[in-house]
Amino acid sequence: MSGFRHVAIIGLGLLGGSIGLAVREFLPGVVSTGYDADPAARQRAAERGLTGMVCASAAEAVAGADLVILCVPVGAMGAAAAEIAGALAPGAVVSDVGSSKRTVAEALAAALPGAAIIPAHPVAGTEHSGPDAGFAALFRKRWCIITPPDNADPAQVAALTAFWEALGAKVETMSAGHHDLVLAVTSHLPHLIAYTIVGTASDLEEVTRGEVIKYSAGGFRDFTRIAASDPTMWRDVFLSNRDAVLEMLDTFSADLDALRTAIVSRDGDALFEHFTRTRAIRRSIIAEGQDDARPDFGRSDHAGG
Amino acid sequence: MSGFRHVAIIGLGLLGGSIGLAVREFLPGVVSTGYDADPAARQRAAERGLTGMVCASAAEAVAGADLVILCVPVGAMGAAAAEIAGALAPGAVVSDVGSSKRTVAEALAAALPGAAIIPAHPVAGTEHSGPDAGFAALFRKRWCIITPPDNADPAQVAALTAFWEALGAKVETMSAGHHDLVLAVTSHLPHLIAYTIVGTASDLEEVTRGEVIKYSAGGFRDFTRIAASDPTMWRDVFLSNRDAVLEMLDTFSADLDALRTAIVSRDGDALFEHFTRTRAIRRSIIAEGQDDARPDFGRSDHAGG
Repeated sequence: MSGFRHVAIIGLGLLGGSIGLAVREFLPGVVSTGYDADPAARQRAAERGLTGMVCASAAEAVAGADLVILCVPVGAMGAAAAEIAGALAPGAVVSDVGSSKRTVAEALAAALPGAAIIPAHPVAGTEHSGPDAGFAALFRKRWCIITPPDNADPAQVAALTAFWEALGAKVETMSAGHHDLVLAVTSHLPHLIAYTIVGTASDLEEVTRGEVIKYSAGGFRDFTRIAASDPTMWRDVFLSNRDAVLEMLDTFSADLDALRTAIVSRDGDALFEHFTRTRAIRRSIIAEGQDDARPDFGRSDHAGG
Repeated sequence: MSGFRHVAIIGLGLLGGSIGLAVREFLPGVVSTGYDADPAARQRAAERGLTGMVCASAAEAVAGADLVILCVPVGAMGAAAAEIAGALAPGAVVSDVGSSKRTVAEALAAALPGAAIIPAHPVAGTEHSGPDAGFAALFRKRWCIITPPDNADPAQVAALTAFWEALGAKVETMSAGHHDLVLAVTSHLPHLIAYTIVGTASDLEEVTRGEVIKYSAGGFRDFTRIAASDPTMWRDVFLSNRDAVLEMLDTFSADLDALRTAIVSRDGDALFEHFTRTRAIRRSIIAEGQDDARPDFGRSDHAGG
């Protein structure tokens, strides 16, 4: 039990919808209300029952809620917070699921002076988006990072922790600044690189797009999955976590240049040494339960692909 | 039916082992013999029955075979061909499965003057390697690219095509040079980038390796899968397809620089436009049957991850 009695979810896409379904499945006594700025998404959310009630305005959705979770792209957090400012119940905790935390914390604090703001980021997702994409098990065994401000109430942090644990997540707390560095390397840089190479491959003169698609099983297709993620969400992430992303990108570029030099100078030993080292990381990720050990994730397993 | 009566497989790792198992399953009348330079791999291959017989030398394995497939790292193709030169039956077709084709074709032609050499490359694989990694369904619905030299016998090309089709593959023919460009972008560059970022992430000062592993579900883990591939194989690929890889890498670097500039100058429209375009490629790959449409490949589906 998390202690919250009424959870309001603003934004009913992949993350918001999954939270709603998870609350209904794993916290059946808790009231859930939801809102999405897109009328079509609201209708679909109501059809799927993503929250107990889907409301016609954000203010209506948060009325009486003791936990409000903003599940909109990080660039829209400030506006979403402003929309609920007048309707927030006294003592309500306001949280979010944004992939960057420093700029989001600033935007929420500016829009909701005096409110109990405890930002969070469940590190989970798929390449799909919208009100049809969510499912209750999305957070199972995944980490949720909570970044409480210095003046946060420990009891409210504990309640938010218990809420995410009830949804199946493992919870860690850290500063917003450290979160942004960690996510820059584990999520933002990989997406930026994936978006880049998929663009590169589709614009070549010597190799057609049809050939790229046909022979993508050689490695390329792994990049297309994350390069299919929601464009609005990712535009906002790169703009809001700009400094940390640029820092990691520069380190990556220097490392890529070193491997390029090894290829140019035919330094097979340097390549072999590097490729051996990276194998160990994969083993640790599987041992930690953060990925699937089946060859190829089971895509081409004995049952066929 | 492929027309070949006896297939010899030199190198019994992921590819060689999978061919052996597929021959036994889908071409039950065909004799199969195999050899691996590593005695431990030979023993394991015999235990798993990767080929009908596992021989003590490459010469013994190819004796009487009308199709010989070299399944060793591309840097070892010349030496493997030299080893069988004296034992090859008259009229035997010599093929391979190497990921680069121009340098392999040259190495085979130099080692086997006068032999019927028809290089090939099944675009299939997993991140696992060695005699335990193979399975019969590896080639099902995957493309196999055949790169016949100008003087190839059309009947032998047709027989090799029928052989791969019997193993479940779809076959395309093209020049070795074009193959090397196509694979540079669909396979070699993605691997180089994945190897780079996994190295970058494990060497940071501000973010620990434990944190990288813990929060890898945000995107990073997708790269670790292909960065866990066999280091010897990949060292050889980058050295043997050096020019095409460097050409694609330079295009990628220019594209990455353009996205970097968009982030630096906070050009959200440029980012959004790029991220929207790359989504379409993913849809085509799924429509072509070259990947799995389940969210996250089913890793975090309703059954849990």
